[in-house]
Amino acid sequence: MPYYSKPLNNLINELVKLPGIGPKTAQRLAFFILERSNENVTNLARALVKAKSEIHFCRDCFNFANDELCPICQDQKRDHTVICVVEDAKDIVAIEKTHQYHGLYHVLQGTLSPIDGIGPEQLKIAQLLKRVKSGTVKEVVLATNPNVTGEQTAMYIAKLLRGLNIKLSRIASGIPVGGELEYADELTLGRALDGRTEI
Amino acid sequence: MPYYSKPLNNLINELVKLPGIGPKTAQRLAFFILERSNENVTNLARALVKAKSEIHFCRDCFNFANDELCPICQDQKRDHTVICVVEDAKDIVAIEKTHQYHGLYHVLQGTLSPIDGIGPEQLKIAQLLKRVKSGTVKEVVLATNPNVTGEQTAMYIAKLLRGLNIKLSRIASGIPVGGELEYADELTLGRALDGRTEI
Repeated sequence: MPYYSKPLNNLINELVKLPGIGPKTAQRLAFFILERSNENVTNLARALVKAKSEIHFCRDCFNFANDELCPICQDQKRDHTVICVVEDAKDIVAIEKTHQYHGLYHVLQGTLSPIDGIGPEQLKIAQLLKRVKSGTVKEVVLATNPNVTGEQTAMYIAKLLRGLNIKLSRIASGIPVGGELEYADELTLGRALDGRTEI
Repeated sequence: MPYYSKPLNNLINELVKLPGIGPKTAQRLAFFILERSNENVTNLARALVKAKSEIHFCRDCFNFANDELCPICQDQKRDHTVICVVEDAKDIVAIEKTHQYHGLYHVLQGTLSPIDGIGPEQLKIAQLLKRVKSGTVKEVVLATNPNVTGEQTAMYIAKLLRGLNIKLSRIASGIPVGGELEYADELTLGRALDGRTEI
């Protein structure tokens, strides 16, 4: 597009590579950025480079960290005897927002998916096993997504951990709070019945 | 939020400042950025800084430019006797996409809005007058938005230019192509009737 000057065109091309940013949004962002102060733009650019260069994976749980351990693994007030196993670091944020979990995490960095060539070696499963076997862990909560690959992964890990004398659990599936039975699919409703709790 | 490491939190805070990017999207973008290659992230950061530092306003038309003149004013194949007056540089992109206009532009950088303290001095109106008076210009197309402030601005400029022996026009308002009379508001339909053309 010759009606953009080159640096602007270049910026739009870079922004378009981000997820959920189409050409229109990229253009809007680029024009917005041009109207911001130099300092603002430099801050954003610096934050990008700094996050990328300083953040790596936590030694223990494979969450994002800028020290050897992530903020959660470092926190001595948390319960180090419980590990919640999730697929992705994003899931930690979701669980933390509930304020109901105070243990540690373990990020698998994906799910088992033979079709995509992802087996146990591609995930952080061996590392989880090692953590659990180290002795301090008393409970493991499997919090992979309740979809096909998430379920399979949870089942696979459950089999590995079963003999280890720890409490093993899976997060509940059921009707979301505020949802309606009428609109729930049969599988979810079946799970909700299966997982009924006494009141 | 203590569950993000600091550089990640910082990146999310910077991304949230962009228009249309809420906390959720910022988080998603930040996680995506962490998963990209170092080179990709550096390219984006560099494009940001470069666009901001190299781009300023075109000397003649106040479009974005990285030389003294913007690519459009530099283009000798374009018709330098016609000027299309727009509110914002974004509008140039929209008009260029029609491939129907081959003249130059003039970006007002806003519209008259006494309530917000924006009078003629805050806009590039004096500069437009100077360009028109310079002698090469034969036609001015007023393409501000057909809303209250855009109309007022067009009328104001029309008054200034009326005595100058140039052709003066305003873009047409009417039913959008593919639209239906049934759903058009009265004002738009009125304009469509007013602006009817012989066939």
